Amino acid sequence: MNESFKNKAPRIVAIGGGTGLSVLLRGLKQHTRRITAVIGVADDGGSSGRLRREMGIIPPGDFRNCIVALSDEDSLLKELFQYRFPEGSELQGHSFGNLFIAAMTDVTNSFEDALTESSRILSVTGRVVPATIENINLSVELADGQFIKGESNVKESSSEIKELFIDPPDAEASPTAIKAISNADLIVIGPGSLYTSILPVLMVGGIVDAIAESKGLKYYICNVATEIGETQHFNVVRHIEVLERYLGSEILDMIIANDNITDIGEQFHGEAVDPSTGSTKHIIATSDLLDEEHKVRHDSGKLAKFIMENYLG
Amino acid sequence: MNESFKNKAPRIVAIGGGTGLSVLLRGLKQHTRRITAVIGVADDGGSSGRLRREMGIIPPGDFRNCIVALSDEDSLLKELFQYRFPEGSELQGHSFGNLFIAAMTDVTNSFEDALTESSRILSVTGRVVPATIENINLSVELADGQFIKGESNVKESSSEIKELFIDPPDAEASPTAIKAISNADLIVIGPGSLYTSILPVLMVGGIVDAIAESKGLKYYICNVATEIGETQHFNVVRHIEVLERYLGSEILDMIIANDNITDIGEQFHGEAVDPSTGSTKHIIATSDLLDEEHKVRHDSGKLAKFIMENYLG
Repeated sequence: MNESFKNKAPRIVAIGGGTGLSVLLRGLKQHTRRITAVIGVADDGGSSGRLRREMGIIPPGDFRNCIVALSDEDSLLKELFQYRFPEGSELQGHSFGNLFIAAMTDVTNSFEDALTESSRILSVTGRVVPATIENINLSVELADGQFIKGESNVKESSSEIKELFIDPPDAEASPTAIKAISNADLIVIGPGSLYTSILPVLMVGGIVDAIAESKGLKYYICNVATEIGETQHFNVVRHIEVLERYLGSEILDMIIANDNITDIGEQFHGEAVDPSTGSTKHIIATSDLLDEEHKVRHDSGKLAKFIMENYLG
Repeated sequence: MNESFKNKAPRIVAIGGGTGLSVLLRGLKQHTRRITAVIGVADDGGSSGRLRREMGIIPPGDFRNCIVALSDEDSLLKELFQYRFPEGSELQGHSFGNLFIAAMTDVTNSFEDALTESSRILSVTGRVVPATIENINLSVELADGQFIKGESNVKESSSEIKELFIDPPDAEASPTAIKAISNADLIVIGPGSLYTSILPVLMVGGIVDAIAESKGLKYYICNVATEIGETQHFNVVRHIEVLERYLGSEILDMIIANDNITDIGEQFHGEAVDPSTGSTKHIIATSDLLDEEHKVRHDSGKLAKFIMENYLG
């Protein structure tokens, strides 16, 4: 990679959470150092959920994964960050990186400072920032009238989601997130779980306004596969429709979607998201973006390259 | 400190464990970079004991304290290493540095490699090595005939200790420890708990022979205060007598003892160790070595300076 190019490279804000966001970041860091990941804070499962409940901190798991994805460090420390304590200990299932961020949060008395310090130690390209520093809980109303509380429960809901709520409903965006969005040359929304990773960021007070007012281009990266409990049977157009209920319909400049449609395999409980059905006013740029080994994921390299090709025009 | 002096400075091996050893190391690193701390592995209490039992690793606490004592890093990472998780979480009482060493041990599959990596990350002067990589359990026979098992229990024994045992009795020294002792210009034994920190190192197969055969000078640093359950009412001479039952009587070149005898205060449950009573063939070099704030401890600076003055002679 050309270093001078990297310094003139676009300021990119990536919005979301979960595996999708870290896949994207791993690819993007090959093209620019000026990356800010704006990450949702509604996770309540696993090691993150335990730390959240017991220590009152923002769930660190998605932040940890993004720090690792953006880390230049090719060392044991990076491996250590992803280490999980084994069965049979009271630490069972805890990710070491989560404990690192939790302890650092207590020492610095600030979740954002803890992320900055952890990023420094792992030689991170760019930054990871929380959408808000308030602890958010998700709930949904399903099409069948049921209400479900908590991110991990939502992921297992049986009927289509009608409405998403965050609690507190008036949670405000972190100033760092707003500033990064305002100054971005390119805002990339997704990939990631629509209801549990992406929309919880957009619903935080100030985020959508900042996106709308930013001069940066706005791309939505549609998932390559549907997710049970969230986007079952969704095509690309249906993803956009749901997204725009929260984002507004005049904001997106481009949709990026995978067109390598294959049989995902039963073990993944999902199906390929089709960009060729349905109708929309939006420009949908398609390419083969599939990770051939994990057919529910984007390939980092293909995705980042295609985003940059479209951005650079 | 003069850098050229530091490079010609003596190779010092410090033997023991617990607070005493880390106090010594904090002082010594001002005089030489060539320090190897050889640390006992019989700890079974607190966070270390939990990790030892649940993950089968060598108890990391004493190693963590010595790494921090030898760390040049004046950063949050050092503070983080000493952080303890708060009450109310399942992590309660665990030291973050212990979890760091435990996870690194699992990732590298070697306790010694984990110490090397942790030391590198914390910019440690010198090295910390375990006396043995076997997991050692202590037991004692008391003067009243009772047998007590486990380091934490020994520390609470009510009667004088008659005999100390390690299990397995034939545990062998780590080659790294033996090599450091063989190449030392100065071997410093103590300060530290006599029965639970110092003797468990000396009882490991190969350690005493290596000390005896090393051309380095051998100093014993006597504790400034007695310890209930271990050395109640001991004067300096009594400390030496017990030590030499395990070390042999022809080995020590010098004893270093504090002569600032004060009232320690009831809260510490100990009394000042007197160098002026009893008789011994040994040279006892005395000086005011007391930490005025913690009167059961040596002052790092005074102790290291006095050791170096005697060594440089």
